[in-house]
Amino acid sequence: MITVQEKVRFVETDMMGVVHHSNYFRWFEMARVEYLRQAGILLTELMAEGIVFPITHVDCQYRASAKFDDIILIETTLDEVSPVKMVFTYRVIRKEDEVLLATGSTQNVFTGENGKIIRLSEKYYDKLKASYERKK
Amino acid sequence: MITVQEKVRFVETDMMGVVHHSNYFRWFEMARVEYLRQAGILLTELMAEGIVFPITHVDCQYRASAKFDDIILIETTLDEVSPVKMVFTYRVIRKEDEVLLATGSTQNVFTGENGKIIRLSEKYYDKLKASYERKK
Amino acid sequence: MITVQEKVRFVETDMMGVVHHSNYFRWFEMARVEYLRQAGILLTELMAEGIVFPITHVDCQYRASAKFDDIILIETTLDEVSPVKMVFTYRVIRKEDEVLLATGSTQNVFTGENGKIIRLSEKYYDKLKASYERKK
Amino acid sequence: MITVQEKVRFVETDMMGVVHHSNYFRWFEMARVEYLRQAGILLTELMAEGIVFPITHVDCQYRASAKFDDIILIETTLDEVSPVKMVFTYRVIRKEDEVLLATGSTQNVFTGENGKIIRLSEKYYDKLKASYERKK
Repeated sequence: MITVQEKVRFVETDMMGVVHHSNYFRWFEMARVEYLRQAGILLTELMAEGIVFPITHVDCQYRASAKFDDIILIETTLDEVSPVKMVFTYRVIRKEDEVLLATGSTQNVFTGENGKIIRLSEKYYDKLKASYERKK
Repeated sequence: MITVQEKVRFVETDMMGVVHHSNYFRWFEMARVEYLRQAGILLTELMAEGIVFPITHVDCQYRASAKFDDIILIETTLDEVSPVKMVFTYRVIRKEDEVLLATGSTQNVFTGENGKIIRLSEKYYDKLKASYERKK
Repeated sequence: MITVQEKVRFVETDMMGVVHHSNYFRWFEMARVEYLRQAGILLTELMAEGIVFPITHVDCQYRASAKFDDIILIETTLDEVSPVKMVFTYRVIRKEDEVLLATGSTQNVFTGENGKIIRLSEKYYDKLKASYERKK
Repeated sequence: MITVQEKVRFVETDMMGVVHHSNYFRWFEMARVEYLRQAGILLTELMAEGIVFPITHVDCQYRASAKFDDIILIETTLDEVSPVKMVFTYRVIRKEDEVLLATGSTQNVFTGENGKIIRLSEKYYDKLKASYERKK
């Protein structure tokens, strides 16, 4: 598990005075990118090799509202990994009082630029697997 | 069920050349607002009465990518309704070739401005219920 | 001049209860894409030929706030055009009472994929020029 | 002048492979909020007193494209201040090679919740003025 910190932006709020629910998936993405970086994988490197990693499933359960200027912590776990997909789970926590705001998950597959599913090469898969073993 | 049509915006794409996955929830919202309007319920009216309707759960399964300038159809069904919550389901279809791009669901609860769950007054609930019966 | 109609999305509002100022540039873009389409130019076609059209300048003056669910009209004029750039101007009007909400402008240049400025080929420039003459 | 650091999000890119131009205004806002915080002014505090601060003008000149994962620095200066308005200017710099990516400005006025322009109370104006004098 890694923890990524973000600050809630004014633009992320809506007229109900709290963060719009779609933005949690943008935070999940920031955290996922950072998880992969720490595992030694840069998305720009994958893309340069023609590897695409479309999202195939997401879900989020909202328990309490994030608000403007909150510092939030995104606890991020690689929950499942294989050469064809990776599943991450997330917990969003308000730093100030440690209240759990939301939980969620995302699934990516790996494809070529033609959209066909591929198996991730060992160079990358070994890094993911190592990170998975280490951080579980 | 109602069907809402949208056109994919350039800003909704990302550097993978397709629509960013978070935007589907923004389309679901456009469709949900329209469903409620056709049922006789305006969100601005609810808010003026101090009724808030936070999202408590969402999910989405992505099957094919929406692209810039696509015309999309969002088929929207009120799948469950009670005085304390409503669950909508969605199917996003590319108009040109009728390919199913994504399916998803959202759950809202009703709360007061203090965040406590309330029961929706009959004035609104009867409209929702009638729409639910009619459109199933 | 052409006029494009949009409906304000819930997600476009912020906690001040009105549309976030950055979203006007997303509406300008929707209108600009439509202007070009009516002039016979598809952005996807330009991109397929390796022509890129980065924005080099924007401005917007805000006079009154757009609100959730407003129907807005975006009056869009190609104000200047040459083989190396195009300048559009915009007026955003609330349909219901014809109040002017904002005015703005955007400038695009044409570049190759390497980012170097190019001259637009006659095939496209003639269409732009014709539209410019006709619609002024 | 203060300098605020941000990291470019994947969602901020578009299908041209670079950051969508509208997002620079979201970065300007993050920087402006931070400037005001350092001057001793919290937006949430202003809002709690019924003080609203709508944007009335923005502009941005784009010189080079920000890309996914870039670390950017937003140099932010309070360029003009009076009890009825504040003008900020911004320079966005790519940290890695110190290339200037964009410059811009924003103007806010102060209003009551009814939208009428007000004069900022001394409590806040003195802080702004002090920061303006100190940081110029």
